[in-house]
Amino acid sequence: MHAYRSHTCADLTQANVGDEVRLSGWVHRIRDHGGILFVDLRDTYGMTQVLCDPDSPVFAELEKVRAEWCIRIDGTVKARAPELVNPKIPTGEIEVFVRGLEVLGASKELPLMVFGDQEYPEETRLKYRYLDLRREAMQRNMKLRSDVVAGMRKRMWDKGFREWQTPIITASSPEGARDFLVPSRLHPGKFYALPQAPQQFKQLIMVSGYDKYFQIAPCFRDEDPRADRSPTDFYQLDLEMSFVEQQDIFDTIQPVLTGIFEEFGGGRKVDQTWEQISYRDAALWYGSDKPDLRNPIKMQVVSEHFAGSGFAIFAKLLEQDGTEIRAIPAPTGGSRKFCDRMNAFAQKEGLPGMGYIFWRDQGNGIEAAGPLAKNIGPERTEAIRQQLGLGVGDAAFFLGGKPKAFEPVAGRARNVIGEELGLTDKDRFAFAWIVDFPIYEKDAESGKIDFEHNPFSMPQGGMDALNGDPLEVLGYQYDLACNGYELVSGAIRNHKPEIMFKAFEIAGYGKEEVEKRFGGMVNAFQYGAPPHGGCAAGIDRIVMLLADEANIREVIMFPMNQRAEDLMMGAPSEPMNEQLRELRLRVLPPEA
Amino acid sequence: MHAYRSHTCADLTQANVGDEVRLSGWVHRIRDHGGILFVDLRDTYGMTQVLCDPDSPVFAELEKVRAEWCIRIDGTVKARAPELVNPKIPTGEIEVFVRGLEVLGASKELPLMVFGDQEYPEETRLKYRYLDLRREAMQRNMKLRSDVVAGMRKRMWDKGFREWQTPIITASSPEGARDFLVPSRLHPGKFYALPQAPQQFKQLIMVSGYDKYFQIAPCFRDEDPRADRSPTDFYQLDLEMSFVEQQDIFDTIQPVLTGIFEEFGGGRKVDQTWEQISYRDAALWYGSDKPDLRNPIKMQVVSEHFAGSGFAIFAKLLEQDGTEIRAIPAPTGGSRKFCDRMNAFAQKEGLPGMGYIFWRDQGNGIEAAGPLAKNIGPERTEAIRQQLGLGVGDAAFFLGGKPKAFEPVAGRARNVIGEELGLTDKDRFAFAWIVDFPIYEKDAESGKIDFEHNPFSMPQGGMDALNGDPLEVLGYQYDLACNGYELVSGAIRNHKPEIMFKAFEIAGYGKEEVEKRFGGMVNAFQYGAPPHGGCAAGIDRIVMLLADEANIREVIMFPMNQRAEDLMMGAPSEPMNEQLRELRLRVLPPEA
Repeated sequence: MHAYRSHTCADLTQANVGDEVRLSGWVHRIRDHGGILFVDLRDTYGMTQVLCDPDSPVFAELEKVRAEWCIRIDGTVKARAPELVNPKIPTGEIEVFVRGLEVLGASKELPLMVFGDQEYPEETRLKYRYLDLRREAMQRNMKLRSDVVAGMRKRMWDKGFREWQTPIITASSPEGARDFLVPSRLHPGKFYALPQAPQQFKQLIMVSGYDKYFQIAPCFRDEDPRADRSPTDFYQLDLEMSFVEQQDIFDTIQPVLTGIFEEFGGGRKVDQTWEQISYRDAALWYGSDKPDLRNPIKMQVVSEHFAGSGFAIFAKLLEQDGTEIRAIPAPTGGSRKFCDRMNAFAQKEGLPGMGYIFWRDQGNGIEAAGPLAKNIGPERTEAIRQQLGLGVGDAAFFLGGKPKAFEPVAGRARNVIGEELGLTDKDRFAFAWIVDFPIYEKDAESGKIDFEHNPFSMPQGGMDALNGDPLEVLGYQYDLACNGYELVSGAIRNHKPEIMFKAFEIAGYGKEEVEKRFGGMVNAFQYGAPPHGGCAAGIDRIVMLLADEANIREVIMFPMNQRAEDLMMGAPSEPMNEQLRELRLRVLPPEA
Repeated sequence: MHAYRSHTCADLTQANVGDEVRLSGWVHRIRDHGGILFVDLRDTYGMTQVLCDPDSPVFAELEKVRAEWCIRIDGTVKARAPELVNPKIPTGEIEVFVRGLEVLGASKELPLMVFGDQEYPEETRLKYRYLDLRREAMQRNMKLRSDVVAGMRKRMWDKGFREWQTPIITASSPEGARDFLVPSRLHPGKFYALPQAPQQFKQLIMVSGYDKYFQIAPCFRDEDPRADRSPTDFYQLDLEMSFVEQQDIFDTIQPVLTGIFEEFGGGRKVDQTWEQISYRDAALWYGSDKPDLRNPIKMQVVSEHFAGSGFAIFAKLLEQDGTEIRAIPAPTGGSRKFCDRMNAFAQKEGLPGMGYIFWRDQGNGIEAAGPLAKNIGPERTEAIRQQLGLGVGDAAFFLGGKPKAFEPVAGRARNVIGEELGLTDKDRFAFAWIVDFPIYEKDAESGKIDFEHNPFSMPQGGMDALNGDPLEVLGYQYDLACNGYELVSGAIRNHKPEIMFKAFEIAGYGKEEVEKRFGGMVNAFQYGAPPHGGCAAGIDRIVMLLADEANIREVIMFPMNQRAEDLMMGAPSEPMNEQLRELRLRVLPPEA
């Protein structure tokens, strides 16, 4: 017999009754019922009930065993009495009578219980991660993560993509966040950087003539702490293709992701048709470039109904350039109580409030209520109602000003309204491509023009477009929104050196600076670069959505805490003097 | 029609004759034959001949195109005249008459030709890697690498393993080489390290209750330059299992590797039975712990035939403790010319020479020749011949002294003899497990006892063995030798804290130091650690063997040069002052 097991803890059924078996695993729970010891023995596959009465040669030994000891038992499989069968687990028909026992690994007193649902502070969970990871939810999440990544690979291979690892110890990459630096010992005073993304390398792979690249790629960014992201690194499904247009990228990644969400989404509905929404429309309709489309609410411009109206605040506002009034329709939200609650929400968000109208029927037919309705009068109110397609029992909220200023709050209000009114379909993964991002934005204070996103996207219209108004130039650049998150981001790249230099020039970067910062790639583009494009999908975020977790640390095996510390391994730590000497580095005192 | 292609450059056959097609790719070669332009158009899939006569509307444009320009052509597929069919390529039956042309990416003058076999200095190849990677051999190697890694993953999944990424920004790992350090910005003065291997993390995954882990894992070591290794990082197929013994690990990895070598080995024979050879026997028989078993030569101890013999050098040597004489049999090596050449080899290796005997028949039956035979006389010579099983036309070489001192040279001599005599079967992948490594070794100078390999292996015999002579203790530790390389290394781990502390104590490490250096893992072992073990297979080396390449940079997409520089991206480089300030670091001048 094998030294440790003849079966896993998930294997034994009625068919094994009478067999002599050997199991290894952890003591999930041990109980004494009338002098008989019952142990739930657990391994990563399942759980088996084993028991031991005082006649067993190992009874005294088993009495000493505690939760989370790792043990091996030998015993005989017996059928459970019908009334004791547990239909919830595969091994629920049997139990094993223990005759032999070996303690493989004893345990000190536990700082964290594996059995049960007790909650522990995150610091405890991270310090004793090896215990935390034994808990059912974490086992499930970690297996899900691994299976999702494997599922991505299989789907990419099926589409003719090959995976290549790009360098991790490399030069600074131009993603705009902070690099982690790695001092060079062979070249003291010089530093490598960990890549913020494989952006330049994947583009170089295209210039190298490989057509379809992907990678489950680690990305490193020295970020300031935030609850929902890892402060050091994250993983993305990174892909790039040559000889493609935007739609080709969409057609490639969509079936990969729908496949993953269908396979691992626990039966939740997965959108099969992914709408393409322009960045401008997304801002207008949803107040966000990553709208949650499970929420059916679509905002509308209603300025005309307020221009010159009796509601002086909006009427005056509209006299300024570039202002607008937008409505958030709230079907079924037609009660003063609800409207007041939303108004309070707006005040918490720093607004003076949020105007509203709601429609009711108090026996005299449809009637518009709320202070706003009074101010603008029945005709305008009715026109608004008709535009928004609302009726009795519904409401609408109104925000005004310069769109850029109020859109974020409007977007959040839309979320809260959808949520509170139960309009948001929780049982669905709702996808849409956000397209036509502007290439440039103007800094509100300095008036300086800079790249809105990634500087490597191809402007729609190419060189001609760049010769016009930069703020009008749209890029072949896209994000995928899913349930309010940005899951994917990508672009068709600017592979023409002359267009690239021009694009950078508009943002104030001279040719020399471009060559200095992105020399590897810019040089390569001068030797027969193909048109190419791609995207990257955030793996941690996808697994969070599938696992229905709000904290990224629930889907990472060994995460850092929010202060970027590994409490289990003790990182970061003081270096040895010898190490610093070899690197020719000195650490300066805090006040230097 | 698609903007860039209706077909790839490998697609078109007789069946497409008459079709209007669109192809994109690189101009591999352009020739003018009697006023007609012939272009070999290449993409990553294949090559298609396209041509253009002066009647084509784009003739003048195509005349300007040069090698490695990236172009798109539109044209009509025509059958080639029978005498012009090229049976060597899939598209050899057809050619495409060009009617439309778009230059997608022009090229400056090439520093490196893609077409042809011209050799270039490595610095040129690495600086213009994107051109180098377009060459046929590199395309093949990179695809092979990707396919090998994918093949490993598929085989591991089929065996029920899951892949998890372990941290890259972490604490120093105890593999004995130099760490790359990463300064922490949030904790100035403290440093992370890049992992030399996921050793501790994979063991922690086992303590966390996951049974079967693997990872295509990047490993980072700040190594001094050497031709056959990357100075910064390498990849391994890393695996670990719980509730296993040594043989379970062998049974797991062997089919994975035989499968890979059979699938990608180009038809070379792959050993199906992998012998297990003790470390001691490997040294004796092959003079190496990574013997090349394609070479059938097995060395033997022949001390008894020289003790008290007329060959004074060996006879005297054998009077000293711990000395031995070993023979390297050389079937078919029985000529003075060959024996002298091997003797010269030994002198080049720093030995005074290598004694030999060879057997010939000059018409009087078998006769032993060479100075050694004369010195020890016919009886001893014949006894040696019989022990070694040699005959007419064969030879044997002799080395003596303390085995540790001459084994390396003996091993190299065995290689050269096997090679020169054509005994080494080049058409084979020959595997053997080297087992029973000693846990400890004694430093020849200091007499200090230290770990021979990895300090985390379980000693055979457990605690009892550690209470005896440390130098006699063998570990459950193993390497896989293939064609003279160490492909895999692994161990059953020491998962019992008390045995681990004892093992470290013998090597002079106190409990406190162990807890300081390996605290993460040692703490974890006190909470119900399962017995576990695993191994890691070197991916770069495996791909090198499969691709028949001697330089690791031939199988890495974007390698560093030997001075650990990336010439294409310009790494490492000077940091910005702002970066150093944030990290609170100062670079010291060279002489400080």
